[in-house]
Amino acid sequence: MLINFKNYRESTGKNALTIARIAEKVSDELGVVISVAPTFIDAVKVKESVSIPVYAQHVDPVGYGSYTGHVTMENLKEYSIDGVIINHSERNVMVKDIEFAVKKARDLGMKSMVCSSTPSISGSVAVFNPDYIAIEPPELIGGDVSVSVARPEIITESVNIVKKISPETQVLCGAGVKTGSDVRKAIELGSSGILVASGVIKARDVEKAISDLANALR
Amino acid sequence: MLINFKNYRESTGKNALTIARIAEKVSDELGVVISVAPTFIDAVKVKESVSIPVYAQHVDPVGYGSYTGHVTMENLKEYSIDGVIINHSERNVMVKDIEFAVKKARDLGMKSMVCSSTPSISGSVAVFNPDYIAIEPPELIGGDVSVSVARPEIITESVNIVKKISPETQVLCGAGVKTGSDVRKAIELGSSGILVASGVIKARDVEKAISDLANALR
Amino acid sequence: MLINFKNYRESTGKNALTIARIAEKVSDELGVVISVAPTFIDAVKVKESVSIPVYAQHVDPVGYGSYTGHVTMENLKEYSIDGVIINHSERNVMVKDIEFAVKKARDLGMKSMVCSSTPSISGSVAVFNPDYIAIEPPELIGGDVSVSVARPEIITESVNIVKKISPETQVLCGAGVKTGSDVRKAIELGSSGILVASGVIKARDVEKAISDLANALR
Amino acid sequence: MLINFKNYRESTGKNALTIARIAEKVSDELGVVISVAPTFIDAVKVKESVSIPVYAQHVDPVGYGSYTGHVTMENLKEYSIDGVIINHSERNVMVKDIEFAVKKARDLGMKSMVCSSTPSISGSVAVFNPDYIAIEPPELIGGDVSVSVARPEIITESVNIVKKISPETQVLCGAGVKTGSDVRKAIELGSSGILVASGVIKARDVEKAISDLANALR
Repeated sequence: MLINFKNYRESTGKNALTIARIAEKVSDELGVVISVAPTFIDAVKVKESVSIPVYAQHVDPVGYGSYTGHVTMENLKEYSIDGVIINHSERNVMVKDIEFAVKKARDLGMKSMVCSSTPSISGSVAVFNPDYIAIEPPELIGGDVSVSVARPEIITESVNIVKKISPETQVLCGAGVKTGSDVRKAIELGSSGILVASGVIKARDVEKAISDLANALR
Repeated sequence: MLINFKNYRESTGKNALTIARIAEKVSDELGVVISVAPTFIDAVKVKESVSIPVYAQHVDPVGYGSYTGHVTMENLKEYSIDGVIINHSERNVMVKDIEFAVKKARDLGMKSMVCSSTPSISGSVAVFNPDYIAIEPPELIGGDVSVSVARPEIITESVNIVKKISPETQVLCGAGVKTGSDVRKAIELGSSGILVASGVIKARDVEKAISDLANALR
Repeated sequence: MLINFKNYRESTGKNALTIARIAEKVSDELGVVISVAPTFIDAVKVKESVSIPVYAQHVDPVGYGSYTGHVTMENLKEYSIDGVIINHSERNVMVKDIEFAVKKARDLGMKSMVCSSTPSISGSVAVFNPDYIAIEPPELIGGDVSVSVARPEIITESVNIVKKISPETQVLCGAGVKTGSDVRKAIELGSSGILVASGVIKARDVEKAISDLANALR
Repeated sequence: MLINFKNYRESTGKNALTIARIAEKVSDELGVVISVAPTFIDAVKVKESVSIPVYAQHVDPVGYGSYTGHVTMENLKEYSIDGVIINHSERNVMVKDIEFAVKKARDLGMKSMVCSSTPSISGSVAVFNPDYIAIEPPELIGGDVSVSVARPEIITESVNIVKKISPETQVLCGAGVKTGSDVRKAIELGSSGILVASGVIKARDVEKAISDLANALR
């Protein structure tokens, strides 16, 4: 389970630390791995404040060098950031940049999570053997209906094609996940976890929202 | 004087803090304002470690919201980051995004520094009334020859057109600035300061490099 | 008056020739200069079929060379295409690319029309001395309300700032222009013509739509 | 065999027609299918002048609608353009845009050729079942050494992974192909044809260059 903080007011600055600590607490209590993906600006502060895995929301296809305004994995590694989200539908990248980022994450001992919106794209990015593929049909992102309910075949077909091409890659279910029942449906369809954002960040009771989802994952 | 840390190995992670502290020390000793622009990842750590102004290397044209992998000025402001570099030649943006960023910086009480590579572009971005315009012909960036020496007319003409369109905007001289003599030439040509990167970061003696430039600015 | 054909089904392929010929006919009858901007694919066919000016909808910031999938002004010039639209809100470009395109258009004897969405951007692009600046607030594009009616101050302020910075540049009024009365309002506010798309292309009677607008321009 | 005209002076405008006619002549004489990919601007003129297949160098991920400066497959189809190059290293696109373009080409009865620079990327794009995958390591493009000679394992591995994922997709060998011997090596390694640009366009004797390559393909 990964919570994408995006750039919501409720999950940046001090709020990023608050939500990360709640996630850590629930993770400890329920024994479920909960990761968080704060903004670039918040990432190091969050990493230093909690012991759960911290992901960057994106990474640029460059390493050390004369690059202004870019985010490199080398720089993330200097703070022991645990992984990176790649190709989120709000930050799509070119296919060669996915190859670059997944490979470099592996070389640096970091986790890679590549986002996908269709079964074919899931298969396509599976060729690079990322640790995780998160299915998020863009039309469901931020909405109230989970992909596991609205378009279950997208999960099933993604799981099948990924299993064939890269058996070690785990498939996560994103977009519209809000309730424990969404999660259980996602697991039934063959996914190994969830990628969630507004469902947690915009919840009236963040701790309860995280607990409900984590409980369903146990 | 602003030091752009880019993504050099010598100026990210712990090295970012080291160089920022040297800059702070020289600034205190010589009474010259020295600002630093570390990576997004390092920015907060640097800001918390020194009292000199800290800039972000870039900012995206969005505010709080459902944006993954973007950098917002609101988020920078939460840590009291002092300003932003906009339209660096390694991270050029659309004209409407320059308008967005300069305006939002002003609204949030942050400084804006817009990069330009020609006198016309200097005039063009001056219309938005940024605090600073930094002239950096891309072909001189990272090189050994200062723009103030190689292409003095670019500085002179930029200063003239900016004075006409936005008299309060200060013009900085970037690209290839390495020695005190480069700086003196830049000041003679009408610029108010310098934007420097490899000239400091890649110097064998960083403190001496910063001191030489700062001394020439006094 | 420039008619932007965009990629509407009603104005590509054979339909592009049909509408271009109607525009030519109205232009001849009323003695009003009417230009057309078909797609890249249709541009040469349209140019060979009518005697009114033909514009490209965009141009890339490169010349002859090893560029795949780019549009160069040199290539347009080989067919005597008359001008280029630059920085349309559906195809925004970087500030240095506006400088490149306006300058190269001038060098090649082609007309340049730069789109803008605010008075400040109008002033900003005026520094490059294009032949035309077309004001199109994106929120009004494709709609039923003309910018000259909904936001007259955007036109007035644009005209004022452009007059100061580049007196020879003519200001056109775009976005939502549909009726002769929209046009008259636009002229009153100081603009010299109009940029229109759906108002003509999606009209039930295209000839009547063009005639009405052209009549109001006389 | 596909000849990519890029934006070379030698292959745009009237020169595009000249080279296309030479290609047609050689194709007729030798009985080898030779396709050409002129610029967007030249594409229709070339299509109307020759009977060999004509490809577009790129296509945007949109259909009919309010898109300025974009190239749609619908518009290409109106002139019976035969296929599209997708993801050329000089015009890389996002993975979802490759899916879009390959699928739409299939729906419209057009051919799709996706470019790749590594075996993994070949496998990744093979998931979308394009008609062709062209291997072009960017560092060899425009050079004098053929990929089939310099990096034969890139071809072999690409052929193997593509065969496994999408057996009907044919693999072409690009980048640096200049001589008949380069072509024979490419065929030996399992590719079905070649993608060539400067090797033909910049040749002193274009007809001889095309003949040599085509002869080797027989």
